Order: sequence, then structure tokens, then C-alpha cells
Amino acid sequence: WGQGERWGSAVIDTGMKRLALTDADKAVRDWFVEEAKSLGCNVTVDEMGNIFAVRPGTNPDLPPIYAGSHLDTQPTGGRYDGILGVMAGLEGLRVLQENDIQTDHPIGLVNWTSEEGARFPITMISSGVWAGVVPLEKAYASQDVGGSGSTVRSELERIGYLGPRPATPEATPMAAHFELHIEQGPILENNQQKIGVVNGAQAYKWFTVVVKGRAAHTGTTPMDARGDALLVAARMINHSNVVANNSGALASTGILTLQPGSVNVIPSHVRFSLDIRSKSDAIVTEVEQKLKRDFAAIAQGRDVEGCTPPSAGTLPMEVTWATDYHSPAVHFDQGCINAVRTSAAGVLGSSELFRDMTSGAGHDSVNTSKHVPTAMIFVPSKGGISHHPEEWTSDEDCALGAAVLLQAMLRYDRG
Amino acid sequence: WGQGERWGSAVIDTGMKRLALTDADKAVRDWFVEEAKSLGCNVTVDEMGNIFAVRPGTNPDLPPIYAGSHLDTQPTGGRYDGILGVMAGLEGLRVLQENDIQTDHPIGLVNWTSEEGARFPITMISSGVWAGVVPLEKAYASQDVGGSGSTVRSELERIGYLGPRPATPEATPMAAHFELHIEQGPILENNQQKIGVVNGAQAYKWFTVVVKGRAAHTGTTPMDARGDALLVAARMINHSNVVANNSGALASTGILTLQPGSVNVIPSHVRFSLDIRSKSDAIVTEVEQKLKRDFAAIAQGRDVEGCTPPSAGTLPMEVTWATDYHSPAVHFDQGCINAVRTSAAGVLGSSELFRDMTSGAGHDSVNTSKHVPTAMIFVPSKGGISHHPEEWTSDEDCALGAAVLLQAMLRYDRG
Ligand SMILES: NC(=O)NCCC(=O)O
Ligand SMILES: NC(=O)NCCC(=O)O
Repeated sequence: WGQGERWGSAVIDTGMKRLALTDADKAVRDWFVEEAKSLGCNVTVDEMGNIFAVRPGTNPDLPPIYAGSHLDTQPTGGRYDGILGVMAGLEGLRVLQENDIQTDHPIGLVNWTSEEGARFPITMISSGVWAGVVPLEKAYASQDVGGSGSTVRSELERIGYLGPRPATPEATPMAAHFELHIEQGPILENNQQKIGVVNGAQAYKWFTVVVKGRAAHTGTTPMDARGDALLVAARMINHSNVVANNSGALASTGILTLQPGSVNVIPSHVRFSLDIRSKSDAIVTEVEQKLKRDFAAIAQGRDVEGCTPPSAGTLPMEVTWATDYHSPAVHFDQGCINAVRTSAAGVLGSSELFRDMTSGAGHDSVNTSKHVPTAMIFVPSKGGISHHPEEWTSDEDCALGAAVLLQAMLRYDRG
Repeated sequence: WGQGERWGSAVIDTGMKRLALTDADKAVRDWFVEEAKSLGCNVTVDEMGNIFAVRPGTNPDLPPIYAGSHLDTQPTGGRYDGILGVMAGLEGLRVLQENDIQTDHPIGLVNWTSEEGARFPITMISSGVWAGVVPLEKAYASQDVGGSGSTVRSELERIGYLGPRPATPEATPMAAHFELHIEQGPILENNQQKIGVVNGAQAYKWFTVVVKGRAAHTGTTPMDARGDALLVAARMINHSNVVANNSGALASTGILTLQPGSVNVIPSHVRFSLDIRSKSDAIVTEVEQKLKRDFAAIAQGRDVEGCTPPSAGTLPMEVTWATDYHSPAVHFDQGCINAVRTSAAGVLGSSELFRDMTSGAGHDSVNTSKHVPTAMIFVPSKGGISHHPEEWTSDEDCALGAAVLLQAMLRYDRG
């Protein structure tokens, strides 16, 4: 459902294109519901279309221990991001069912709606509503980036997944939330390790920076009479890299647009995104503050330490910042982390094959951790590639991850 | 005909939007033909739609001395670029007619078709065909950038300006070509001067540079494991500015596009334009060669003198160059230049009010100069602004320019 770009000749050498709340998403949801029911689960859907499948436990007073992730993908996504966590959860339910294993807590599996934010541009939107960090009305009103005018609400209704239950921790309580996910980075692979015991997620903050210069003819305007917004933006992007490196943080620009956009016209307007990340909230703030100070100086044509001096006499320009998103650093629950670490040790044997790590990206678990004990499990991503058709994790690593996920849930149930 | 964006409240506070071979262009052409005929001119149209209006001289063996420029504009163009040269030519013809002035040579005025290259993306296309630097078939096949499928040929036919005469110096001989144009830069204004005696045009070369890195997640990819094509492109753009400044040349990037274009995805592909100019062909070549060498080093993550050192461990990337356009340096005819200089001295009195200068931009005169004695006359552009609705030259400066243009043509006729 939602096969994407083909990149090789084998049956599974394809990416995925399963944007949230499309017909392909409806198809995989319908399959998921049938599959969960066939494994003895009760299935409920909340007002954000989050699907909760629950296999009863022996103690009716306990809330379920959940595995959870998402089935939606990027437009040029791979077969693992999000999908692995849901498939491994199903596999765990199958193991419990086939082996008739009883648990104290019910064991649940949740498919969170529209984690990617690729079609409706708010990432982790539905776990965000559940956690109270995204208002329901804002989520419902979020529009398809394709400009079709469809909203989250209209598409939930259209595909029949606007459920009756409120999206809140009260309406859907959890004892814990465990998420298996691909690393989406190169650390495990580079260290020849199989499992990442994820202790938390780094802080990140997204900005849009706009530089306003002056359009002028490239042939007739001397270098020292220019307000070249692209030259200044280029200096800022380069400088953000230097400053982030010096602070051990990450700074990245993924989007840049300019006007007017002609070979012989100096750009007057440049708009670019800036994504700053670090394990430490204080370091994100420090990098943000340094860059706000230094970008202002660069726009004024003043010298900035660590930055190539500007060409003499460049016209002063205007620079403005808008904050688009802020996700503070998250520290997962020690009990859950221990359950994952002990399970990894049990499954892998050698302590050299797993490591503690911090998630570089946001996940639905960042939201659940605000209300219930949470931890994550990472498996290697080949070449660190993700959000790309060639995303790849070996069958063996997927199976190891699924085993650690189930073990951690059972351990948490017992302990 | 083709009023553009309004920027102020006065009747003439508007820009122009008169793209070549549109209905607005047909309207102004029809008016031009009528006007020229009413001033006693014979009017002919060649196969590129170039319109030649000629007032007979007393010696039937001499070819005409032409004034010439263009009536088409950029989509957000001003009221002066090109238009001033044609209007001043008409005004000159009117002065000759009203005062019954006889000249040895015929006096001509040419409206060159589609100088801007804004609708059909080859600048100075029709003087280029006339001069033999653009093949007729290539010019005819040039397509509307709007994607309508219209070509130069189909639009010439549609508006009735595909004339019978070959576009060649043999079919339309000229004794000389004089072009009055706005400076499109700040030099005259900054020096409080009224007339630029244009000795030639600088060399320029246009390139498209493509950097290929690797798309990866901004949150999960350590700085030293990135192939960040935008960071590398930013370093290149900054470096091109440093190198051009050191050589006294101009280097500018007016277009930059990237893929995939998402806040949390490191760009894998960046494509940008590079426009290098100098009075000296050798300096353009020198800057090109330095940048080819240094961009390769930057893409490989190696240190480059004058460029901020790269972040340690960045992945090597691929960089490719394509040459899109090359216009070698042009030196105008000494006889024509002298006619302009002497006329400027006569009209302005003080030698502090005019200067010799080099055109920063290409003009139809660059093409005519390959076959006939040519020179240009510049008048100030307020704020150096051009290709913009707020392009502005005072009435007084326009009149001074027109006076120098007519004087220079008469002087050339006599001398
Ligand atoms: N896993 C993931 O790609 N999350 C999206 C938010 C982020 O950029 O961290
Ligand atoms: N005058 C003018 O804008 N010519 C176009 C070619 C150039 O960029 O110099």
C-alpha cells in the first residue's frame, strides 16, 4: 500500500510513498485493524485517527503497556521509518498469541496518525494532540501542503478514521510506551553495533531567517555598492556551521528560496530554514543567541570572528528571524530504559553490540514521554540513510529489534 | 502599452511590463512605425522583426548612421531601459525634420527585437542574428519561458512582424550605430555626472554550477558525516566574492535552487548560476580558472586560502560546471567615441560632468560593434536601480542624453 520509487531489481528494492490519510494510508490501516483483531486484540480509534489495538492482560485494573510508531511515510520515504515499529509490535502480539503467553498488563500497539508531517506540516501531530502539546483544533485545521484544501479533519472523515474517543491520556491511558525505530543516522553502523538503548531525544528548534537586500544588475553594480542578500545568506549558513561545530551542536539549512531569481539580477530577498539541535537545551539556546548576534553583524557588513570578512563597503541589510517549532530535550524513563538495556544484553549477549544513545530526531515517543514512562530502541540504518527510498535495515537487525521490543515490554510487565 | 507595476501616485510612477512579441509589444511597434513615417522616414522590417526607420540623406551612396535600442522590457521593468534610446532617436528625427536639417548620410533609427531575453531566454537575440553571432534557426526556435510553447518565429508571425528582409549587415548596412541607454548602475550618480562616454563593454561569462552531496536527516547525521550540498555551495558563493574582489572583477549568483527542500533534510543537490565580469577577458578567465580549482577543493573538503576552513570530516562531493554564455570584452570605435565625447563636452560645458566608462551590461551595441563603428552614451540611473519598476532618470538627464546622441550622429556625419 503506497509503494514508492524502485531503486533495485529485488521485490523489496522500493521506497514507500504513503502520505498520511491518503487512500494508501486507509488501505494499510484497514489491514492493520484486521490483523490486530485476528491476533485477539480489541481495536479502538480516537478523534485523531490514532488506532489502539489491545490484547487483554490478567489484571483488569492495569492500563496497557504499548508498543507504538507510525505507518505513514515521506513522499520519497523508505520501508522502515515508523513501519518497523508497528510491524514489530504486531509480530510481538503474534508471538504472545501463538505461545499463549499471559501478561499482567494488557499489551497494546498504537499506530499514531501522520507522524511525518510531510502532507500536513506538523510533525508528530497526533501523539502531540494526545499529549496536549498540539491543540485539537489546530491539528484538525492543518492543510495538505499540496494545496488541495483538504484538512486533517476532512481527510480523517473521508477515509473513515475520525473515531469517537478523545485523543487524551485520560481516555487512552498507558502504563508505558516503547518504540522501536531505525536510527536514521550512521552511529550504530559505524560502531558495528546492533541496538541503541535510547535515553532521550535531543532538543531542536526551527527558524525561518529572511535577509532583505537590494535587487540590482550583476553587470553594472560595483561590488561595494551591493545589497546582495544571497551572499549574506551564504555567509550566515557557513557561519551557522562554524558556530554549531564549536558548540558540539548541529545546525542545518534544508530550504532556501530567493527572489527575483535571474542570472543577471542580484537577489534582493533570501529566505532560509535553520534547524539547531543539541542534547542540551542550554546549548541550543547558546547557538541561537550567538547566531542572532552574528547574523545581525553579518547583515550590517561587520566583521565576525570565525567568518570570512565581508567585501568592503557592502550595503547594510535587514535580517529577521521567526521561530517555527521548538522541541525541548527529552529524557526517557529510567525504568523503561533499564528494561530495554537488560533486554538488549539478553538478546545480544555481548555489551559491545549495543550502546546508550540519544535520538537525533523527534518521534511520537517524545510526546508520550510527557505523560507516561517511555523509552525507544534503535536498530542500524545502512549508510545512515533515511527519508529516502534506499533506507535499509537488514532482516536480521529488524528481528533483533523486534525481540528487544517484546522482551522490554514483558520485562516492564513483570518488574 | 504594457504599463507595469505602479510604485507611486504620479501619472508616470509605474514600471513597464512589455515582454517581447506580446500584444503590448505589437501595439508600441505599430505606434513606432506610424511615428517614424510621419517624420518622413522609410520603414522596413527584417526577418527578426527588427524595425529600421530611415530619413534620407543628401548622398545616396552612403549607408545610414543609426541610433538604436529596444522597446521590450523585463516583466518588472522600468520606463527607461531600452525605451529611452528609441524615444531619443525619434526625438532626434523630429528635430531634423522640424528644422529641415540635411545630412550627408541617411539618419536611421532601429528598434531591435527582444533585447532583454526575459520572455525568450537569449539576450540581444535579434542584433545577435543581424551580427551573425546567433544562428537564425536557433533564434526562431527559442521558446517562451512561460511554457506556452510559442516561439520567436510563431510570435513574430502572429503579431505581423516577420519581415522579408534578411537580418544581416549586408541587407541592412550601417555607417555607424549609436545607442543612448541608462547606466543601470550607480557610478554617474555617485560622481554627480550627467553623461557616460562608453568606450566598450566588459567581458562576461555565465555558468551553472551543480553540487551533489547526500540527502540525510538533519537531526541524526553528525556534522562530520554529512554531504551538505548547500553548505558547500554557500562556501563557494562566498569564495567567488572573495576571489572576484581580489581580482577587481565581479562575480554574482542570481539563481540558486536545491533538492529535496525540507527543513529536516540536508540538501543533496544544489544548482546555482555564476556570472563573472571584468573589463579584461584575461581577468574573467583568471577568475574562472581560480574558482574551478578552488570549488573542486571546497567540494573535497580541502582548505582553500581566503575561505573559512571546512568542518572536519565532511564527505567529499561532486561539483560540475556548465558554460551557458560568453560575451568577450568589446572595445567601441574611436571615431564614434570621439564624436560622443566631443558632443558631451559641447552640450555640458564642464569636463567634470561627463566621464569615460565601460558598460557593465551587454547591449545591442555589443553586437553591432562587431560589424560597424559603434559607441554608447549613458545617462544616470537613480540609485543605480534597473530592471525594476522604480528605475528612474530625470527628464533633464534624458534630454541631455538625447542631445548628445543627436550631436554625436551629426558630428559623425560631418567628420
Ligand atoms: N523521525 C523524524 O524524522 N521526525 C521528524 C522530526 C525531526 O526532524 O526530528
Ligand atoms: N542591459 C542588459 O541588462 N543586458 C542583458 C545582458 C547582461 O546581463 O549584461
